[in-house]
Parts: sequence; C-alpha cells; structure tokens
Amino acid sequence: MPTVKLVDPDTADPRIKAVFDDIKATKKIDWVPAIWRALANHPEHLELCWSRLKAIMQPGTLDMMTKEMLAMAVSITNGCSYCINSHTAAAMKFGMTKEQHGEALGVIGLFNQMNKLAEAFQIEPDVLPPTD
Amino acid sequence: MPTVKLVDPDTADPRIKAVFDDIKATKKIDWVPAIWRALANHPEHLELCWSRLKAIMQPGTLDMMTKEMLAMAVSITNGCSYCINSHTAAAMKFGMTKEQHGEALGVIGLFNQMNKLAEAFQIEPDVLPPTD
Amino acid sequence: MPTVKLVDPDTADPRIKAVFDDIKATKKIDWVPAIWRALANHPEHLELCWSRLKAIMQPGTLDMMTKEMLAMAVSITNGCSYCINSHTAAAMKFGMTKEQHGEALGVIGLFNQMNKLAEAFQIEPDVLPPTD
Amino acid sequence: MPTVKLVDPDTADPRIKAVFDDIKATKKIDWVPAIWRALANHPEHLELCWSRLKAIMQPGTLDMMTKEMLAMAVSITNGCSYCINSHTAAAMKFGMTKEQHGEALGVIGLFNQMNKLAEAFQIEPDVLPPTD
Amino acid sequence: MPTVKLVDPDTADPRIKAVFDDIKATKKIDWVPAIWRALANHPEHLELCWSRLKAIMQPGTLDMMTKEMLAMAVSITNGCSYCINSHTAAAMKFGMTKEQHGEALGVIGLFNQMNKLAEAFQIEPDVLPPTD
Amino acid sequence: MPTVKLVDPDTADPRIKAVFDDIKATKKIDWVPAIWRALANHPEHLELCWSRLKAIMQPGTLDMMTKEMLAMAVSITNGCSYCINSHTAAAMKFGMTKEQHGEALGVIGLFNQMNKLAEAFQIEPDVLPPTD
Repeated sequence: MPTVKLVDPDTADPRIKAVFDDIKATKKIDWVPAIWRALANHPEHLELCWSRLKAIMQPGTLDMMTKEMLAMAVSITNGCSYCINSHTAAAMKFGMTKEQHGEALGVIGLFNQMNKLAEAFQIEPDVLPPTD
Repeated sequence: MPTVKLVDPDTADPRIKAVFDDIKATKKIDWVPAIWRALANHPEHLELCWSRLKAIMQPGTLDMMTKEMLAMAVSITNGCSYCINSHTAAAMKFGMTKEQHGEALGVIGLFNQMNKLAEAFQIEPDVLPPTD
Repeated sequence: MPTVKLVDPDTADPRIKAVFDDIKATKKIDWVPAIWRALANHPEHLELCWSRLKAIMQPGTLDMMTKEMLAMAVSITNGCSYCINSHTAAAMKFGMTKEQHGEALGVIGLFNQMNKLAEAFQIEPDVLPPTD
Repeated sequence: MPTVKLVDPDTADPRIKAVFDDIKATKKIDWVPAIWRALANHPEHLELCWSRLKAIMQPGTLDMMTKEMLAMAVSITNGCSYCINSHTAAAMKFGMTKEQHGEALGVIGLFNQMNKLAEAFQIEPDVLPPTD
Repeated sequence: MPTVKLVDPDTADPRIKAVFDDIKATKKIDWVPAIWRALANHPEHLELCWSRLKAIMQPGTLDMMTKEMLAMAVSITNGCSYCINSHTAAAMKFGMTKEQHGEALGVIGLFNQMNKLAEAFQIEPDVLPPTD
Repeated sequence: MPTVKLVDPDTADPRIKAVFDDIKATKKIDWVPAIWRALANHPEHLELCWSRLKAIMQPGTLDMMTKEMLAMAVSITNGCSYCINSHTAAAMKFGMTKEQHGEALGVIGLFNQMNKLAEAFQIEPDVLPPTD
C-alpha cells in the first residue's frame, strides 16, 4: 500500500514532466518507473535524486553491467523488494547471463554469512605484513 | 575484544593445519587471516566455510576483481569493519584502481539511499511492459 | 501470511480486553491495530509492550509529530512495511504536511547513503577542536 | 583503519579546495570533517555528495534540529559509529537538550523493537476504516 | 515477483533431481520448498548450499528446536519474509509451543531495542572484573 | 567515544541508585554495566528498560542459556559490538560450551546467507500442503 500517490506522467506539471522526459530518454523506455512517480510528490527532491543518479549511472571506469550488479548486491543485502527486481532486470538488460547471476548470488550469499561470522568473533582487521 | 581465542597456526592440530596450509597456498600468502584462526575453534565449521569459499571465490563467468567488489558492496552495506578492510584490499590486489573504487562507492552509496526511498514509498515492483 | 492467529477483540479474555480498551481510548480509534491483536497471543508480552509504548509515545519535550517522524525514520531504515505505513499515517495525523514528508524523506535517504560511505572509508569519529 | 588516505586540506588541488572552503563556510567551522577528506579521493563524487547535502540540510518546513535528529535516528538504526557521533553532536549544536536526547532514544529504541515484532508476525498493513 | 523461474521438480535434470530427492528424504516431506527450486537455476550453487545446510542442521550439542529458533531470530532481525515463515513453522514442528514462541519474541524484540541503544551511546564493551 | 557521560554509581541520585542496586542484585555482580550507566542520563527511560528486561530475562518455558543465545543471534545479525560481547559472555555463564557456541555460529552464519538468497529470488512463502 503506497504511502504517497504516484504522480500521473500525463498530467504532471512542466517541472516534473521535464524530469520524466529525461528519465525516459536516458533509459530508452516509454514509461516512468514507480519510484520516480513517487518522488515527484516533492519536485526538488525528484530533481536532486535524478540528476545524481544520472551522473553516477553512466559508463565510466566500470561498465554498466558491473554497476547494476553492485546495485543488485546492495539491494539484496538491504532486502528491498522493488530494488531487487529493478536492478536484477537492469543487470540482465546490460548483459548479465543466467550463469553470471548465479555466480553473483553465490558471492553475495557467502559474504552475508562471513560478515556476520566476523562480527560474531569481534576480530580486528588484519594488519597486513609490510610489502617492500 | 575477540569473543574467542585465535588459534595459533604454529601449534594447531593437523586437521586445522591442513586447512590453514590450503588457505595460504590458495591465497599465495604466508600468514593466516584472523577470521580463519577464529573459525578454527570449531574445526568442522572451519572446513565447511573454507571449502565453500574456495569453490565460490575462483574465476568463473565473473572475474576475481568483480567478485571482490561484490563482496565489498555487501560488506559496506552490512557495515562489517573487518570485511570492508579485507575485501577493499582484495579488490585492489585484483586490479581495482582508485578511480574504480571511487565509482563503486558512488553506486553503493546511491542505492543505499534509493533502497530506503523505495521502502518509504512502499511501491510495488514495476510490471514491465511486454516485450514481443 | 501471518505466523500467528490475530486475537479477535470481541471474544478476547478480560486481561487482553483491558489492554485493547486502553489502546482504543488512548489512540481515540474504535478498532484494534493488527500488531496488538498479534501480540495478544502472549498476554504478558502484550502488557509489557503496550505499557512501555504508552509511556514513551506521549507529548514531552518532543511533540508527537516529531516522535512519529523519528519512528518513521527508524521504520524506513529497517524496511518494515507494516511500520512504515503505520508511522507515516500517524505523523500525518499529528500534522506532518506533504512538504514536510518530502523533506524528511530527503534527510532519511541522504543519511542512509552517507552512513554507508562512512563505513566504506572506515574513518574514526572526528575529535572536535576544544571549545573554550 | 581507513581504507583510503584522507586528503590534506592544505595541499588539496583547487577543485577540492573549493568544496572544502564551502563546507567550512556553510558549517561555520575551521576544519574539514574526515568524511569529506575521504570523499575527496574522487573529486566528482565529493562535489555530488556535498552539493546534495547542502541542498537538503538547510532549514525548510522542518528546522535543523529536527533534521539532525532524523539523521541521528537513521545512523543509530544503521549502527554507523562515525555518523552517530557526528549527528548527535550536530543535533545538540542546534539545540537538542539532554532531556530531548533521552526522549528521542526512547522512541528510537522502542520502534527498533516494534519493527521486528511486526516482522515476526508477518502482519499486513492495517486497512484504515474509511473517514467521511 | 520472483527474479528467476522456479525449476520444476518433475522435469529437472538428474543432477538437480538428486539434490531434490535428498531434500525430500532428509526433511521427510513430499514437495520441494521454493528456495531450493530457485537455487536449482545454478546446480553447483544448489549443491553447495544444500550440502552445507544438511551438515549444520542436524542434532548436535544443540537440539533441532533450538537451532530453528536461532534461525528464526536471525530471520526476524533481517526481516526476511520467506525465512520467518519457514523457520517459525520448522521450530513448531520440532516442538516449540505457543508459549515458547511468545517468550522467544519477547527476547528478540527486547534485544533489537537494546542493540540500538548500545549503538546510540557508542559505549565500549565492559571489561569484566578478573575472576580468580 | 561515548555520546553521553556514564553516570557514576557512587554519586548517582537515589532514584537511579535503586535501579543500579536491583541490577547488581538480580545479576549477582558488584559493578554496573556501561549500558545502564549510559541509560541513567534519563532516569525514566532507565526504569522502563530495566523493568522490562528483568521481566523478560528470567527462566520461563525457555531456559536462560537459550534466551541468551537468542540475544546473541540478534546482536550478531545487527553487528552490535557491545551486545555481542555481553551476550556471548552471558550465554557462557549460563552453560554454553565452546562446542555449542561453534554450532550456534554455524546456524547464525548459514541463515544470514540463506535469508539474503531468499530475498534475491523474491520468492513467496511456501503454502504448506494441508495436514489432515
């Protein structure tokens, strides 16, 4: 049960419409994902979130598939349903194969376990032997 | 303050020593990280954890740098101090540059924010338009 | 799929009914929210939870809207669906406007991001310069 | 053990120095908190984070003390040591009294408990009776 | 909306079928829980997960009801819907009474609160007085 | 760096002293753990927390070792340093052996992994076949 009304792209005011249009053009889709329609209840926050996401989620020294897999790892660890669906789909769109998905889940599951064991033992970070 | 005594590699019993030797050979290091010395208090659990980690953390359809960056993303999201240090260092060992580290943190920070906004709105996953 | 049966307010035993009546009177509602009907499966725990919540959730040096917004911030960070709905509605009942809701989400999203970046860097708390 | 070198404000390049100067002027302090010195390893990310934080953390329909208390609630729920110290101090700087701090912790502790009980029961959000 | 197709036990290939048969025999059930059908998309990961779970989830110095209650405590703290349902049911199958369930939830709720208060105060672990 | 001053048991006012005395008598120790000295900055909250903890942490249909192990499982999953130390020590005081500790960590680590895999797949709870 959403806590806000999703803003309708067809009747949104021009400030919001400008962001929606940029989202559709950037993502090459012809609909507006629910997260942006929800954020549009506060146009300034919508602009801040979108401009920053757009700046970060473009190819750089990391490719888009790797970036979406990192987003997927974060979303799974946080248990965010909307985001897990969205970033798993996006990683696939950018080329993640079923085999790569399986391997990524292996890593993500493993270190959610190992993280908690490290906490359980309350061990200090290893001081690495000096390299010379 | 660790909750268990770290097992001393020099005086460990043969069952534990065998695992420690495999860890050092596999990771090409001449010391035993604290997490394995802590796990050695329960040799069966040590073997289960190491054999699984060894099976997952080898190059497959994802390379080792990507796998360590996923481990880093999980560890940061969980806030596990020991693991953040260990996987940041490991990703660097496998070639992550300072620039790639910065970009990865951009993505990890961004989606820790967006995950919580999606939760705040309690929106349902987008039903994607059919592809045909 | 609830893990317990929700106790029916109409047929609850007197010990439970007394708590339900106090909940309705205190909150000025004529129905019993699901969380209390679930807790009623263990009457002693129901009493402990309700008496403590009643003591804390009353106006003090912080007003009720601020208290409900703090509860909303906690619930969003934990990703608890039932609680996000309940505390967003309660904060609105105590006067939170749509604009204030949007600003609060801006803050909550921002620091979920910054929290993880601080973890990623493993920086120590700043030692503040002495004030004199 | 920080995972990056903290950039020295005295020898930072001009792009970074401009942000550091704005941070000091905006916060009215004469030193640069560690989080910004760590972020400065990736100047573009530093600029994105600071410009957004500056836009959000100014008085609006919520006052600064309330905003810092929300940041404190998020940081406590995430268990982020650096951030808990920083936002508790900031809320106090903006006027939070010892009594208000205690009341806020009461609320934050209470709903971290209630959140998990709601999860334990797997109850659906209450459908509120219609208002007319 | 699952992110993978659940593998059909009737048409699974022999490697997967062997694991499914062992799951049914070990758990004394005649159907395959969804988590294993999802994991079967990556047979090697399925084998790793099942063999480890089978090794850990058998009676040892802790009985099965205690082990399932620990799993329930972890799942509630993580807010994992599938797992809360599954481990609550499993603990009941191994003898957890309604009264014990209520007491366990009391403990789990209480320390989710106390954990966050300890974080809020940023106190160091107690150094216990020496025993002699 | 604690965010509050720890109240000194020797100079505490009578209302606080009464709680401290009850803590020492109930736990059969002659010092006051830091969490209670921190909570004492807000005497009413101290009383609420202690009276509730005292009511829950006594033998019931679950014994004290099991209750402390559940508290340990919660604290490890939350990654709360103070609490992990305190509840691991308490469970040992109530009889948890080194072997039982190792088995419990096996379970806790395992389901922190499995929880995240269940989230990754976004599977619905199993509808159990009817029992008749």
